[in-house]
Amino acid sequence: MGMITEEEKIKTRKKILEASKKMFVEKGFEKTNLRNIAGEIGIGVSTIYGYFSSKQEIFIATFFSDLKKMDDVDYGIRSMDYGSLNLDNLSELLTFLFMFHFEEINKLDKDILKQFYCSFYLAEEIKEKEKTIASWEEGLKKKIMEILKNCEENNVFLLPINLGEATEVIYIIYESQIEDYIMKKSLTKENSRIKIKRLIKLFLLGKVKVKTSYDEFMKMFNKLDSN
Amino acid sequence: MGMITEEEKIKTRKKILEASKKMFVEKGFEKTNLRNIAGEIGIGVSTIYGYFSSKQEIFIATFFSDLKKMDDVDYGIRSMDYGSLNLDNLSELLTFLFMFHFEEINKLDKDILKQFYCSFYLAEEIKEKEKTIASWEEGLKKKIMEILKNCEENNVFLLPINLGEATEVIYIIYESQIEDYIMKKSLTKENSRIKIKRLIKLFLLGKVKVKTSYDEFMKMFNKLDSN
Repeated sequence: MGMITEEEKIKTRKKILEASKKMFVEKGFEKTNLRNIAGEIGIGVSTIYGYFSSKQEIFIATFFSDLKKMDDVDYGIRSMDYGSLNLDNLSELLTFLFMFHFEEINKLDKDILKQFYCSFYLAEEIKEKEKTIASWEEGLKKKIMEILKNCEENNVFLLPINLGEATEVIYIIYESQIEDYIMKKSLTKENSRIKIKRLIKLFLLGKVKVKTSYDEFMKMFNKLDSN
Repeated sequence: MGMITEEEKIKTRKKILEASKKMFVEKGFEKTNLRNIAGEIGIGVSTIYGYFSSKQEIFIATFFSDLKKMDDVDYGIRSMDYGSLNLDNLSELLTFLFMFHFEEINKLDKDILKQFYCSFYLAEEIKEKEKTIASWEEGLKKKIMEILKNCEENNVFLLPINLGEATEVIYIIYESQIEDYIMKKSLTKENSRIKIKRLIKLFLLGKVKVKTSYDEFMKMFNKLDSN
């Protein structure tokens, strides 16, 4: 009997997640069981228990394995010309940020997402859950915060704003639209995009200048001219 | 065999709901079944099916039977002096409106609420669901809208605002805090109240005057003086 190395463990965990994901998508959550998954990759059910404590835990880990990668993407947030931002294009930017993250969620079928949503709420003691949701949510909030901070430093806001709370309201707007999207069959991605932009714009209304100032306009104009 | 009158039907339906509510609260959703409920009021299970198609449908109907009554409450919204509203007391008013509705939800145990939340999302074809959620949500939105409309007519807003969308953002803020309250054991009602007021205030920041104007102050002052 050989020792199982750390590397082999990571490999097996990945195999379990891949096989499970395939089955959840093909058969749905209800009809998938640990025996199927174990059979698919030629291991025993007891081996799976070495990695996950339940089907629900695997489901959640599967779902979030993609989402974790988003943290390092920059989306051009850092190199942007914040001085030229106004109500409309800041709302656009924050909507774009959301759509980018949303793509990952959107890879899954709506019914699978719905199932996930509920199993997630019902799951009490899932360590994986806390880590992954926190990771996705915090990752997205960090990006929102980064944008808002840059806005503050570039005098985009007309008045002092609590950036943490502003991040939260924007995140709440995102979240409400994800939920609507998942729960209402007829809603498309484009519906969600339009709605999110409108609500974010309304939130920022009165806090951000509506038009680009003459100076900033000239700066942009000169930039275009010199190209 | 006698005919069942409309009146008797309403009575039986009410009896089923009352017995079910008691059982859901005592035993939880999982351990309650239609046989228990039928036994409790001395009818056959098949009779229950004449009123509800599943345990889930009863659960949802039970939960919302209280919430429907809120529609007619005024909370003093109509008689309020809108001219004297500013950022702080308008946020307070909108928070109060929420807390009033929240009381109804808060009568139930958090675990029951959590169960409800999930069974609600999973339920596909429940007529009762659509009617009751719509009724509660729309009732609350109507009140928010009424407050905002009064604000608009009394020049509380500094700029033109889409009242429908503003209602939606405020409702989303409410909703996010209900969800947090239900899902996080440690959160108290008071935590939710404070958070909601802060987020609503941030939303209104830049859209509503911060201080009461001198004229309005004098009007209030004179009112106090003449009493």
